Amino acid sequence: MEYNFSSRVKNLKPSAIREIFKYSADPSYIPLSAGNPAPNAFPAKAVGEISVALLKNAPVSVLQYSTTEGYTPLREYLKSYMKQKHGVGADTDGILITSGAQQVMDLLTKSFIDAGDVVLCEAPSFIGSLNTFRSFEAKLVGVPMDADGMNLEALNNALQTHENIKYFYTIPNFQNPSGITMSLQKRRAVYELCKKHGVLILEDNPYGDLRFTGEDIPCIKSLDTDGIVVYAGSFSKVIAPGIRVGYVIAPEEIIRKMVVCKQGEDVHTNIWAQSICHHFMTEYDYEAHLGALREIYKQKADVLLSAMREHFRPKGITWSSFEGGLFAWCTLPEGVVMMDFVQRALEQKVCVVPGTAFLTDESEPCSSFRVNFSTPTDEQLKDGIRILGSLV
Amino acid sequence: MEYNFSSRVKNLKPSAIREIFKYSADPSYIPLSAGNPAPNAFPAKAVGEISVALLKNAPVSVLQYSTTEGYTPLREYLKSYMKQKHGVGADTDGILITSGAQQVMDLLTKSFIDAGDVVLCEAPSFIGSLNTFRSFEAKLVGVPMDADGMNLEALNNALQTHENIKYFYTIPNFQNPSGITMSLQKRRAVYELCKKHGVLILEDNPYGDLRFTGEDIPCIKSLDTDGIVVYAGSFSKVIAPGIRVGYVIAPEEIIRKMVVCKQGEDVHTNIWAQSICHHFMTEYDYEAHLGALREIYKQKADVLLSAMREHFRPKGITWSSFEGGLFAWCTLPEGVVMMDFVQRALEQKVCVVPGTAFLTDESEPCSSFRVNFSTPTDEQLKDGIRILGSLV
Repeated sequence: MEYNFSSRVKNLKPSAIREIFKYSADPSYIPLSAGNPAPNAFPAKAVGEISVALLKNAPVSVLQYSTTEGYTPLREYLKSYMKQKHGVGADTDGILITSGAQQVMDLLTKSFIDAGDVVLCEAPSFIGSLNTFRSFEAKLVGVPMDADGMNLEALNNALQTHENIKYFYTIPNFQNPSGITMSLQKRRAVYELCKKHGVLILEDNPYGDLRFTGEDIPCIKSLDTDGIVVYAGSFSKVIAPGIRVGYVIAPEEIIRKMVVCKQGEDVHTNIWAQSICHHFMTEYDYEAHLGALREIYKQKADVLLSAMREHFRPKGITWSSFEGGLFAWCTLPEGVVMMDFVQRALEQKVCVVPGTAFLTDESEPCSSFRVNFSTPTDEQLKDGIRILGSLV
Repeated sequence: MEYNFSSRVKNLKPSAIREIFKYSADPSYIPLSAGNPAPNAFPAKAVGEISVALLKNAPVSVLQYSTTEGYTPLREYLKSYMKQKHGVGADTDGILITSGAQQVMDLLTKSFIDAGDVVLCEAPSFIGSLNTFRSFEAKLVGVPMDADGMNLEALNNALQTHENIKYFYTIPNFQNPSGITMSLQKRRAVYELCKKHGVLILEDNPYGDLRFTGEDIPCIKSLDTDGIVVYAGSFSKVIAPGIRVGYVIAPEEIIRKMVVCKQGEDVHTNIWAQSICHHFMTEYDYEAHLGALREIYKQKADVLLSAMREHFRPKGITWSSFEGGLFAWCTLPEGVVMMDFVQRALEQKVCVVPGTAFLTDESEPCSSFRVNFSTPTDEQLKDGIRILGSLV
């Protein structure tokens, strides 16, 4: 039988990262391509203790159906935590627990995008989100960044040029893939520009707690007095990605639409996983845990930086500076063809992601590639960077 | 700010069941409205044992990112189990693990439905699925059922009358809400009719293992030699719904599109939950567990039937016969207004779901309501049915 697929999926392709991820699951490859947290970053002991207690004392509560909005104790705790610690969330905002932050992208896009509507994105940006926007036939418009985030002139131009812009998608902290952090001044300017044009801001902040140098910068959502910012949070990088728990804090009217969409999508998020997050945040020293994570990633970043100074610098491979997160964005010297370089790296069993994967138009020229430093061991990092350097 | 939602969600409403579910979570109400498995049906001890072992021996494997297709050992085991036990799955079929069977509805609809495309449904049918179809602007066409399933003449008429029919949605075993089971003869006829018209069949089978009387009838998918049946399975009723694990067995080409959609929706299903299902199926006596479930629900059904004979029959409230599942479909005598009856029941703290909730057009006349017998205790069941009877 010939299948007559919907127009929205006819031309969809699997994510290039998830395809490369299949190589990186092969232990004979050096995985500089994934975005996995370091295995020693998981609070496995605590998750085990909490699970034992939950399944012993209240098994039905983690096995039965629950409400779409999410596990109430987690919702209430998170809302007050995010308000107190980050100034995120107004009285008119609601909160919804999602199956990872990826589902925030999906639910918001489903709620706002008709075919042809525009999503403004940082260029480059996270391929997983771009593919979600594409799956609802959004038109993606990439806006270039400076070293301190969004190029404001370009953003202003884009806002004036395009019609039916529904939202501007940004990862303000240690952006994936560029590592760039948006300055406070630019966060304020982006907020004012979007407000002026009646465009929502989708602020995706999976790495915010993983700053290992410099000072925290307030979230764009903390500036939101007009109900224009949708904040996506995630436990994937601070507890564990395999349990798939994220959340969204946004104006109640938007949350209500997202709840209806989530009802039809997966009814609710795994309730054991939600309970794990709640108990871990409230019964363990969560801030000390975040501090330990920052130390783990600082050390891994130091290994990477030292290897890049030794093996990249002499070959003219440059990298953007980064103050946190999991990624370094590297750029090849003139004359080296990036896709050819990535292919040769794969032949040497080193996986990196070609920069084109993160562009709204993958056919644009690009001489950059992304290196992840959280997944590989220190030895793999050193070997991988040495091998990559030797290819130039 | 005024939010400019997409046309697909502008008129979406929350599921009536999930709204009534909020009442049924209040312990002062008698919950005949939910679809929750009986709390004593959960293999809580086994889930606890498996969790302890997993988090002790291989914590990273259940906490790290995984592949979108699902946990490989579970996929492989399920595929062979469903083939051997139910004849479900051809060599050209693939399998995808989903976040509950609800996600199968979502991914298939996203993959096939453009606005205005038709989904044929049994009338009445499961509101959760109908709402998913609606959320992608499908046009729903309800086809009436006889006591042995689908009215074939009506199905044939619908197939001839409507254009752009993408699939026919059916729950062949102990249908939600009607309790009806489709006969083998009708399954064969439905298959041939759909094949003739080039229309897919979405076979949703959450209750198939919960037959407490009569003989099992082969799945429609077991007849599928033409790649036209998409089979949705679920662990919600046989292990636990809170862990959100379902699966779909369908032609590989369809699975591939659904995988891409799932990547953008939640990346993958909670990996702890997938491991639980795999270990429970392979290391425990799964068939004995299913037998125990059937015994639990048989006893609860007996309590319900006895109460209905005592309190419904004298008042002229009738019910359709059912051989398994979780629901009874009851019909009020002439002259009793159903919505008024349901409202008065709520005032007496008894929750049932108005039959209109399950229609493709909620404004159609309907004098039926749905009673769930798995959630309430035996005492609640007896009291609830007595109170409902007293309202007529």
